[in-house]
Amino acid sequence: MNTIGTSLRLTLFGSSHGPGVGCVMDGVPAGLEVTVEEIQREVDLRKPAALIGTPRAEADRVEVLGGILEGVTTGTPVVLYIANHDTDSSKYERFRTVPRPGHADLTALGKYGDAADLRGGGQFSGRMTAPIVAAGAVAKTMLATIGVQVAAYTQRLGRLVDDKERCLKEVRRAARENPVRAADPELALEMVNEIMAAKEEGDSVGGVVRCLAEGLPIGVGEPFFDSLEGELAKMMFSIPGVKGVEFGAGFRGAEMRGSEHNDPFTIEGGEVRTMTNHAGGILGGLSNGMPLDLKVAIKPTASISREQRSVDLEQMEDASVKIEGRHDPSIVPRAVTVVEAATALVLADMCLRGDFIARKHR
Amino acid sequence: MNTIGTSLRLTLFGSSHGPGVGCVMDGVPAGLEVTVEEIQREVDLRKPAALIGTPRAEADRVEVLGGILEGVTTGTPVVLYIANHDTDSSKYERFRTVPRPGHADLTALGKYGDAADLRGGGQFSGRMTAPIVAAGAVAKTMLATIGVQVAAYTQRLGRLVDDKERCLKEVRRAARENPVRAADPELALEMVNEIMAAKEEGDSVGGVVRCLAEGLPIGVGEPFFDSLEGELAKMMFSIPGVKGVEFGAGFRGAEMRGSEHNDPFTIEGGEVRTMTNHAGGILGGLSNGMPLDLKVAIKPTASISREQRSVDLEQMEDASVKIEGRHDPSIVPRAVTVVEAATALVLADMCLRGDFIARKHR
Amino acid sequence: MNTIGTSLRLTLFGSSHGPGVGCVMDGVPAGLEVTVEEIQREVDLRKPAALIGTPRAEADRVEVLGGILEGVTTGTPVVLYIANHDTDSSKYERFRTVPRPGHADLTALGKYGDAADLRGGGQFSGRMTAPIVAAGAVAKTMLATIGVQVAAYTQRLGRLVDDKERCLKEVRRAARENPVRAADPELALEMVNEIMAAKEEGDSVGGVVRCLAEGLPIGVGEPFFDSLEGELAKMMFSIPGVKGVEFGAGFRGAEMRGSEHNDPFTIEGGEVRTMTNHAGGILGGLSNGMPLDLKVAIKPTASISREQRSVDLEQMEDASVKIEGRHDPSIVPRAVTVVEAATALVLADMCLRGDFIARKHR
Amino acid sequence: MNTIGTSLRLTLFGSSHGPGVGCVMDGVPAGLEVTVEEIQREVDLRKPAALIGTPRAEADRVEVLGGILEGVTTGTPVVLYIANHDTDSSKYERFRTVPRPGHADLTALGKYGDAADLRGGGQFSGRMTAPIVAAGAVAKTMLATIGVQVAAYTQRLGRLVDDKERCLKEVRRAARENPVRAADPELALEMVNEIMAAKEEGDSVGGVVRCLAEGLPIGVGEPFFDSLEGELAKMMFSIPGVKGVEFGAGFRGAEMRGSEHNDPFTIEGGEVRTMTNHAGGILGGLSNGMPLDLKVAIKPTASISREQRSVDLEQMEDASVKIEGRHDPSIVPRAVTVVEAATALVLADMCLRGDFIARKHR
Repeated sequence: MNTIGTSLRLTLFGSSHGPGVGCVMDGVPAGLEVTVEEIQREVDLRKPAALIGTPRAEADRVEVLGGILEGVTTGTPVVLYIANHDTDSSKYERFRTVPRPGHADLTALGKYGDAADLRGGGQFSGRMTAPIVAAGAVAKTMLATIGVQVAAYTQRLGRLVDDKERCLKEVRRAARENPVRAADPELALEMVNEIMAAKEEGDSVGGVVRCLAEGLPIGVGEPFFDSLEGELAKMMFSIPGVKGVEFGAGFRGAEMRGSEHNDPFTIEGGEVRTMTNHAGGILGGLSNGMPLDLKVAIKPTASISREQRSVDLEQMEDASVKIEGRHDPSIVPRAVTVVEAATALVLADMCLRGDFIARKHR
Repeated sequence: MNTIGTSLRLTLFGSSHGPGVGCVMDGVPAGLEVTVEEIQREVDLRKPAALIGTPRAEADRVEVLGGILEGVTTGTPVVLYIANHDTDSSKYERFRTVPRPGHADLTALGKYGDAADLRGGGQFSGRMTAPIVAAGAVAKTMLATIGVQVAAYTQRLGRLVDDKERCLKEVRRAARENPVRAADPELALEMVNEIMAAKEEGDSVGGVVRCLAEGLPIGVGEPFFDSLEGELAKMMFSIPGVKGVEFGAGFRGAEMRGSEHNDPFTIEGGEVRTMTNHAGGILGGLSNGMPLDLKVAIKPTASISREQRSVDLEQMEDASVKIEGRHDPSIVPRAVTVVEAATALVLADMCLRGDFIARKHR
Repeated sequence: MNTIGTSLRLTLFGSSHGPGVGCVMDGVPAGLEVTVEEIQREVDLRKPAALIGTPRAEADRVEVLGGILEGVTTGTPVVLYIANHDTDSSKYERFRTVPRPGHADLTALGKYGDAADLRGGGQFSGRMTAPIVAAGAVAKTMLATIGVQVAAYTQRLGRLVDDKERCLKEVRRAARENPVRAADPELALEMVNEIMAAKEEGDSVGGVVRCLAEGLPIGVGEPFFDSLEGELAKMMFSIPGVKGVEFGAGFRGAEMRGSEHNDPFTIEGGEVRTMTNHAGGILGGLSNGMPLDLKVAIKPTASISREQRSVDLEQMEDASVKIEGRHDPSIVPRAVTVVEAATALVLADMCLRGDFIARKHR
Repeated sequence: MNTIGTSLRLTLFGSSHGPGVGCVMDGVPAGLEVTVEEIQREVDLRKPAALIGTPRAEADRVEVLGGILEGVTTGTPVVLYIANHDTDSSKYERFRTVPRPGHADLTALGKYGDAADLRGGGQFSGRMTAPIVAAGAVAKTMLATIGVQVAAYTQRLGRLVDDKERCLKEVRRAARENPVRAADPELALEMVNEIMAAKEEGDSVGGVVRCLAEGLPIGVGEPFFDSLEGELAKMMFSIPGVKGVEFGAGFRGAEMRGSEHNDPFTIEGGEVRTMTNHAGGILGGLSNGMPLDLKVAIKPTASISREQRSVDLEQMEDASVKIEGRHDPSIVPRAVTVVEAATALVLADMCLRGDFIARKHR
């Protein structure tokens, strides 16, 4: 089903080349102040940047169809809708015969047969992330009520890595001031050039988005299967292009000894803290009061304008394919906005489940 | 809740130091042949190996309390129970005051207060994975009916890496012939020594478990949020100690160009295949017919016998803790069995959901 | 949550006096032919009839926001939206202080406090049944693919009872030809008069809706808790005003002896049938191949224009209330359409769950 | 699936003629005092009474396999198990060929084919209600923490009706002092005779169980589909033999005018009450502070020793069947215990969902 979450339940609908895309959020407490402008602001952040983004120009106007009256949530499901305008489906028919490498064409045909809607990636399209971002804006206002903040940035773009330790405050500010959503202005320039270079070569580039969350109380997460890591990971892998998720030291931690990986406890300003954060803010599937530290690996955009090897499914023989469709040479910068929203949605759901946010409508 | 899965639903119960641990599997089709011996065989694989494992000696006898009569499933929930015997709770009280670094003591106290059951890690204990392995044996028989096989092995242990490409068949055989569950006999010896060394130093070592699955039909996985990657990742992060999950090229793929990462299609023996498998067998959240390739990062065991820095929660001052409890210097070898079972459980659920396995009881 | 169903999941949104009402249907197979006209036709049937209905005049135009392209379902969630126009909220503020007898004013205030939206009954309004009817039209096309038909009629209106045995075919035809949705034309006239009489007295009248379904295969329904009766009953009690549900002989059966109540099996035209249908088509929670026979008790409309006894919640003293709002002197005729749609939704969900309708999108 | 509930989730397992029956309760808060004796006491109430009950003699010893340590809940799932002893499956094979009228034999064969376990009714057996009663005992202790009490009694047995208005206190006391669970001692005697008479005639008798609950806060229940009535009804229809459910005036209310049915509000001892309770304690799907008043119609036991008309499924010709199996001439008295437990389970779940009972484990 197209639904995720338990106490805060998000259902996506629409498709890239249908009339529009949208979502229903059930479980949003009544009495919360959310303006459509706030939601719009987040959705605008997801828009492709000039030069490094796709030429597909969508206004992405958010309409509120339910759940919010005069800027206040009513306790009924929040329904957000974004109409599609600039749809160009002309180029997708051929992919039924010659599937695009790295795309879901073949798997979609295998699952849905002729009913499969490949246009613009159909329901696998990155466009489905627009309502996720809109919903994330509502989730952020829920989290704000208990002082939880979320911020993401481009930690890696191809071979360019930002390995500095970063706190949420600087990330929040810096990452919104450059088109690649980097936390470091110099690195941002290099990343722009990297994307331009890939574009000129008719190629694309991947990267890693890092997301931080601060202000989480201790104990967010549910045993046994609904760990905070598990719920966040499930959501992240719903984002098209994500191929890896790690927390804190993650895969690097696999090379460590326990004496090195264990984060020692200490008292800091009358509070229990850990001296390092290899755990990424999560122990035993529950938040431990340290910053949440999540990394998401994003593969290079599958759509590249170079000619690629594929097969002709009718002739069942090797063939080649050239993708004319409009696309981003790197989805990493736009993924930053999506990962941030997706993280907020999971945290809001888990905070509701754990009664850290009042579920009871008041 | 302690439940995972949609069409095949697994509920865990019990705790490390209660009367026992067990599980309920709902959705297992009727008429499936499963003997308790088969289940026992898998559970035995999870037992700690001599020298490199914990001295805690559990018989781990599996009892069938429902759902299987005379070696055939009845269509009612399958209930498997494993009694606890060798429990020693004497050493856990102190951790309420001085939490163990890398453990859930502090977070559990934060969430459950005095009711928190820390004994042997309570419900966060690795012991909860025993019923997962038992359930995995049933899931494997479900998968066998459609020719799907699953096999895992230790791909990394600390700094020792097995970077050879491996096919499922060799992994299945080799990884069960040595105590560290490595696919390569020579490397296995080095890994044993690595664990012994860590043990002598009162330390522990992490690693990476790689799991392969072959025979999956095209199209296993559900949009939008129930992608095959998302469901597998959620399950994996439920396994204590897991801090990262990636598919195919995973994080390495973030450094690639699209022209390199995209797996070109080709015809092989009249079938559509990809020439590489950077996608790890999954495109658009759906299986694409290539082998599933999943990697799981496992942190070094948090329990080490060295003295560690912690805090005294009563005095709210720094303190030190030394863990006497029995534990594995590396949980990686035992995690291999758990990851394999967990993968089988998710695949069986997803195959049921997609109607690749008949849900209708016959 | 505002969601019901398992394989076919319906989520309602909106409220009586917000911008509009609508629903999301997830699980509708792809490739199904459904026109907006068909949906509109069903929704129009729910409109109040002249003279005996509320003067509130809503166009109730159905818009398809997703899931249906060019009259064919795509496999993505079907989203149906109905804008509100003729809303008059002026009269509801007073009910915060003096709750209306038989209404949810007091309970809503108790649950939601000041955030409670009482306007037009808010989310407890009968208006929320409009999207249920729209969704029901889609469910009916799903059922039609396996030859299942559903038809409801007014079996009782106040003291007027239709105790004739009726087959689905006659009910389908007759009940759409008179404003009270009776199966018998003469009785229909009497019922109209009964409603007019109640209206003149500033009163309202209740009744019983009977719903029949034919063509169900044997075995629809899931043990243990998801019996066909249980799922239908849960849905029916979601319809405002429903206070009782029974199947077949229902409460009358409680007075019978087993020798009388048991439906004897016999062979009829090479098929196993029962000679009577006291079971209402369901045995052991599963359909038995006989017609589904469901009765729903509907209370008289709570809104009556007579002065009624109530209390003043501010003064905490007895008070009286007179309801100016527009309302139906009997909701029974309109409930016929809703019960029929609601039955279709549950049957479609249960047929999907039992694999009687192909879940796999093709 | 065999699971019900949202915040308090109950999963049943086992079958009438397997090794045993049991259940898993997930969501029970930690720190609750529950002894196995309390649970056993409730389970004993379900046992057949001498003379008027089935001769099948089951010890029905409850074992706690998880979730309760030293009489206190731990927050992990509560697992209760009851072994089967006195099973006699010899007589059920024939029903595969000649199905019993009023039983699920035919529908089970239609759904499960040869895998269907008809022995003792398999998973449709009344024996599955034993774990429901055990779980109900735990639910009652949860409700007791907020002052909610539940009590049921036999309101009708065949033609014998108890139409007196009754308060919970008298029902609790009286209904446990006679084998038919009647609230009136004289009527109890008549009911015993009615059952004896039916038994002598090789027949069975149905009835109505009425269940009352007091102490419920205002606002228990969730819109839109998870109304208190809907959740209770779904649970009730899971109990074998239930064919009707009504609240308050129920079907009688369908004959009333609104002016008669609406319960007028008044102030009583500084509290808002209604002068009548035709709503049965529920308005708009939410509890309104008045006693919950639920009636359940139970059909006469399908198993009767008289010869009955059936069909031979192999010859496809009419046949007759005589049931030798052991059974209750009326299940109504035992159903009283089950309905009471089932009501407690739903109320506990709904009180958890609405935060009337603390979900957070403490």
